[in-house]
Amino acid sequence: MDSNVTMEKIVSLAKRRGFVFQSSEIYGGQAGAWDYGPMGVELKNRIARFWWKEMTQLHDDIVGLDAAILMHPRTWEASGHVENFTDPLVDCKKCKQRFRADMIPEENLKAKKCPECGGELTDTRKFNLMFKTHIGPVEDDSGAGTLYLRPETAQGIYVNYKNIIQSNRMKIPFGIAQIGKAFRNEIVTKNFIFRSCEFEQMEMQFFVHPGEDDKWFEYWREQRWHYFEKMGIHMDKLRWHRHGPEELAFYAKDAYDIEYEFPMGFKELEGVHNRTNYDLTRHQQFSGKDLQYIDQENGNERYIPYIIETSAGLTRELLMVLCDSYEDQKVADKGNDDDWRTVLHIHPNLAPVTVAVLPLMKKDGLAELAKDIRQELKEEFATDYDQSGAIGRRYRRQDEVGTPFCVTVDYQSKEDNTVTVRFRDSMEQIRVPRAELEAKIKEAIKNYKRV
Amino acid sequence: MDSNVTMEKIVSLAKRRGFVFQSSEIYGGQAGAWDYGPMGVELKNRIARFWWKEMTQLHDDIVGLDAAILMHPRTWEASGHVENFTDPLVDCKKCKQRFRADMIPEENLKAKKCPECGGELTDTRKFNLMFKTHIGPVEDDSGAGTLYLRPETAQGIYVNYKNIIQSNRMKIPFGIAQIGKAFRNEIVTKNFIFRSCEFEQMEMQFFVHPGEDDKWFEYWREQRWHYFEKMGIHMDKLRWHRHGPEELAFYAKDAYDIEYEFPMGFKELEGVHNRTNYDLTRHQQFSGKDLQYIDQENGNERYIPYIIETSAGLTRELLMVLCDSYEDQKVADKGNDDDWRTVLHIHPNLAPVTVAVLPLMKKDGLAELAKDIRQELKEEFATDYDQSGAIGRRYRRQDEVGTPFCVTVDYQSKEDNTVTVRFRDSMEQIRVPRAELEAKIKEAIKNYKRV
Repeated sequence: MDSNVTMEKIVSLAKRRGFVFQSSEIYGGQAGAWDYGPMGVELKNRIARFWWKEMTQLHDDIVGLDAAILMHPRTWEASGHVENFTDPLVDCKKCKQRFRADMIPEENLKAKKCPECGGELTDTRKFNLMFKTHIGPVEDDSGAGTLYLRPETAQGIYVNYKNIIQSNRMKIPFGIAQIGKAFRNEIVTKNFIFRSCEFEQMEMQFFVHPGEDDKWFEYWREQRWHYFEKMGIHMDKLRWHRHGPEELAFYAKDAYDIEYEFPMGFKELEGVHNRTNYDLTRHQQFSGKDLQYIDQENGNERYIPYIIETSAGLTRELLMVLCDSYEDQKVADKGNDDDWRTVLHIHPNLAPVTVAVLPLMKKDGLAELAKDIRQELKEEFATDYDQSGAIGRRYRRQDEVGTPFCVTVDYQSKEDNTVTVRFRDSMEQIRVPRAELEAKIKEAIKNYKRV
Repeated sequence: MDSNVTMEKIVSLAKRRGFVFQSSEIYGGQAGAWDYGPMGVELKNRIARFWWKEMTQLHDDIVGLDAAILMHPRTWEASGHVENFTDPLVDCKKCKQRFRADMIPEENLKAKKCPECGGELTDTRKFNLMFKTHIGPVEDDSGAGTLYLRPETAQGIYVNYKNIIQSNRMKIPFGIAQIGKAFRNEIVTKNFIFRSCEFEQMEMQFFVHPGEDDKWFEYWREQRWHYFEKMGIHMDKLRWHRHGPEELAFYAKDAYDIEYEFPMGFKELEGVHNRTNYDLTRHQQFSGKDLQYIDQENGNERYIPYIIETSAGLTRELLMVLCDSYEDQKVADKGNDDDWRTVLHIHPNLAPVTVAVLPLMKKDGLAELAKDIRQELKEEFATDYDQSGAIGRRYRRQDEVGTPFCVTVDYQSKEDNTVTVRFRDSMEQIRVPRAELEAKIKEAIKNYKRV
């Protein structure tokens, strides 16, 4: 990451180049929600696929799941969310402002004095962060038909764990991975897409024998750290934060966060948690179903498994990739704007566009030849085509969205069927026969080293 | 599709083998919602990727988007959903049952007589199908903070169309593609996952010059028909249904559905609609923003583009793939259960597992060798490993989830480093050197022809 990267630069680039837009912008925007534009959705999809492949395809004992957002409301009683998933709020009786009690100075809270106007504050009350909705034709006071938008994806995994053991013959230890949206009625949303009301999680729940939880906890801490290395993130920007006694959920045995140094400081990216057998025990109790695992290879031993959770934020990882790859780089010394380029050093596997094909000129058949080459490449790669403006400006446009390879078609191309490949990070250009282009690009992706 | 396929068989297979579970089953199930198990999520992801690649990567003038589910509520006033997205309902005053007015015999409705008990019916009233929720800490009667879960993904595209033109330099004609969840408070959900309250859409909105809409409408009808061919669907199970004057939305100029012959009859799979300039005109009116396109290459001509929409259901396509690929096939004549196999002839690009590696025996190092081969394949393919039970039964298990290739490791493998590849559809087996295995499988995927 460029030491000069700021949230302002990221937000501006994200809007300008189609990574992230304010939701419903033409209506003044919807607070807490964001829309992912053409570049953003490609980056997000690629991060999701990278995580999914890493967690399911490359781990023998993990299978996937996609549970519904609308779950049976008893789920959230069992999980404790109905009772405990709350923020403490206070109101000022005078200026009518509302505050999170844990975010105003303690002396104000004690004296019940508004930090803004000095007026009297109400008592602290609990505000549940789950979005409520209602299913069925009649909404009445009985609460029948009340549903919640899931505030986390994990519970969808827990309620399905027995189904999955049966249908897919899973044996402990095994894991279930899921990517999906979750919703929280956050009063304070901030830091761009870092904290929003609608977001995407990538969670994996690993079911283990109660005596083996510590071992697997360490295993998954290692695995998850290694994941960011593989992603090409600057590892010196990451750190572990272990939950202290005050932070640790009462049912958790141990918990570590992986934090990334965003422009606004170190912030949580992912949690690795030993959730013990709490969740399954509660679901067993609330559903009346036997959720014990039966170990047929071990004298039919029965137990409620312990769960090691790895819980990552997809939209947070997208923000991390933008911040981590951003650079304002000096590339010349002519004393004008062209001395600098903005470049995203995104790993080629994650970049929204892999190859841009650029004819040096529109005329003399170069555009047609370039389009023809794009046609050849697009079955294998996400491609772009750009014929407008000076070639230098077109390179800069591709740099700004992180396109790792630009293929330029020039007059020599017409003569000897070669093109130039320009590499984003080094800006080096090499001449490649058209017939070897696909293989050359694949090789460069495979051998990519982060600068 | 096997002429003997029934919804019962599909539902049973889907549950038994981990394609689709009832949502929150341990709590008695959540009506209208379904969970996609290990096989289901892989199949769904592959259909989504296939559509996405087809619509964005392979079409030069289409880019992607992922808009939020929670949009500004004015969106749904502009779109007409607040006013018109309703079902007509009647109640029986005597037996308290509720009916959709358009689903009970007309004579009952006219006579206001309950079709169940003969009691008196109420007047018909409109019931809005949008799920409502509330954002922010206080829910009051003013309606402030009321949000809807989007009932369709299309509006997210319309409100972003200008942003995308700017950020991605799009020129008409161009399209925006989106995959995402939508929610409808359906009173009658039925036919398994065919009609549910939570579902996934794959929509593409194509923006064209008003005079060119008919041409592009035909283009997209052709493209979308061809898509199912490419997917390997039995084309004789598909048909076009043109909307008659009674079905056609008042703002639409023309509309065709692609219908698939499910076991319960021909049902809508996808719609191709000429939505005219209605949606953008309404959003311009309700937002006060100028949503005209400015054609800089054509004397700065200004106009509200016409929109050709292709709107498909991802979860419906999954149901179609299951039904279309299902076969109960007689493979022997010994007079017992083993004479038959259940097989899913899913296209190898869509199958949840691509390659299963099976050691003939667990002993004599065959299991180790097989695991080693799986390790080699799993970077490239979604693999499974199964060592339990007779080899014939293991083939059948793979057939049932549509695994196109089984690699069997036997005693000869230890001697000459060859394995057998068994093809799902033909059950043919060939011997392949281990070093050529990956290439052989890739070739077979490329050359796959649907039986």
